[in-house]
Amino acid sequence: MLTVHHLQNSQSERIPWLCEELEIPYNLKLYHWQQDPLIAPASLRALTPMQASPVITDGELTLSESGAIVEYIIHKYGSGRLALPPSHPDYAHYLHWFHFANGGLQSAMSGLYRVVVTDVDPEYPIYKLAANAVRKVLAHVEVRVGEATWLAGEEFTAADVMNFWSLTGMRTFVPLDLSGYPNILAYMERIGNRNAYKTAMEKGDRGRESCIGGPPPKVFAGLGKIYEVFL
Amino acid sequence: MLTVHHLQNSQSERIPWLCEELEIPYNLKLYHWQQDPLIAPASLRALTPMQASPVITDGELTLSESGAIVEYIIHKYGSGRLALPPSHPDYAHYLHWFHFANGGLQSAMSGLYRVVVTDVDPEYPIYKLAANAVRKVLAHVEVRVGEATWLAGEEFTAADVMNFWSLTGMRTFVPLDLSGYPNILAYMERIGNRNAYKTAMEKGDRGRESCIGGPPPKVFAGLGKIYEVFL
Repeated sequence: MLTVHHLQNSQSERIPWLCEELEIPYNLKLYHWQQDPLIAPASLRALTPMQASPVITDGELTLSESGAIVEYIIHKYGSGRLALPPSHPDYAHYLHWFHFANGGLQSAMSGLYRVVVTDVDPEYPIYKLAANAVRKVLAHVEVRVGEATWLAGEEFTAADVMNFWSLTGMRTFVPLDLSGYPNILAYMERIGNRNAYKTAMEKGDRGRESCIGGPPPKVFAGLGKIYEVFL
Repeated sequence: MLTVHHLQNSQSERIPWLCEELEIPYNLKLYHWQQDPLIAPASLRALTPMQASPVITDGELTLSESGAIVEYIIHKYGSGRLALPPSHPDYAHYLHWFHFANGGLQSAMSGLYRVVVTDVDPEYPIYKLAANAVRKVLAHVEVRVGEATWLAGEEFTAADVMNFWSLTGMRTFVPLDLSGYPNILAYMERIGNRNAYKTAMEKGDRGRESCIGGPPPKVFAGLGKIYEVFL
């Protein structure tokens, strides 16, 4: 059976959530951040060469990269559900937003995270560049979730599963205020009301602040020391 | 017919190259970088909300995000060729490397690019963090192309198309020396010998330095002023 190695409060929440949406069986193995400095446990890092989360194991297979894992589960265990096929009128929207998750949104959030965590002066060009990139991707999402219920269109898809972490839990790494984005706030509410999302959070991240809403959630203690561990 | 809007010497080289590998008809529309400062032309930026390259148009459709474009072309025009299906023994490898291109390799290269272009002191933590991220992704690629001919395995796939730019032309933005990576150097030679790659470079980037080889290629003039345009 599929085992989902889930690092709590990380982008790996995409995977248990996907499994709940697809209603497929899976083993959930939880890993906690070491709090100070905030790093993933060695037992998780040891699973893959990139030492990153999420990871799944499936018999002999160990697979990382969240986009790859989501596609694998959908096509191996989910009969293709939550992906739109080439024949669907929203196929191109689906592809754009699925790939935008890591290519655009999370990439910009990570860029801002790196300047925040290394205490770069907000007046330095590298900081402004990172902050502008985040404003740009958020504006793109804001328009889309104002014109459609879900990112691909009127159908909830894996594109929503891929993007959502960057708007919620990722803000416990980057204290971003979303109050100025009414469409994103309404979209977050729509997802927060999904039973599969609630179940996944209950199983994988019980007690965690929901991070659904405008004001920035509380940032982790021990965050500022992360880079010191890896330099 | 499909129109590929190709910003020369950019990651959009993935798209004409893919079309050549698939041997499908396409219109190639070329855009040149404005050299000083080095920015994409307004006519290209106007095509999509993210103002980024690559872009394709296909009738009423305008699509951005390279991963999305590659999947779209493969499944709409390429009969699924160069993607591995779920039944293929290397399916998981294919997915991992396809998504690693933007989620891992290009993401790390872009992170290093941002610190280089904004003149961050190499002794600052943000610089070291970016440089370490690049070393990590390159080590991962180095191992893989030493154990398999192509990234997904013994079959050339879209995963190769997705990753290659980050090893070649991207180094005209980040002067990275690959001399210490013999497997990557041999892999670059294998791709450089492909007729479809040669044809795409001839059509899309005629006269450009190949960037295949260890020593860093010449970095663009006007690069250091990019961020000033957007701040």
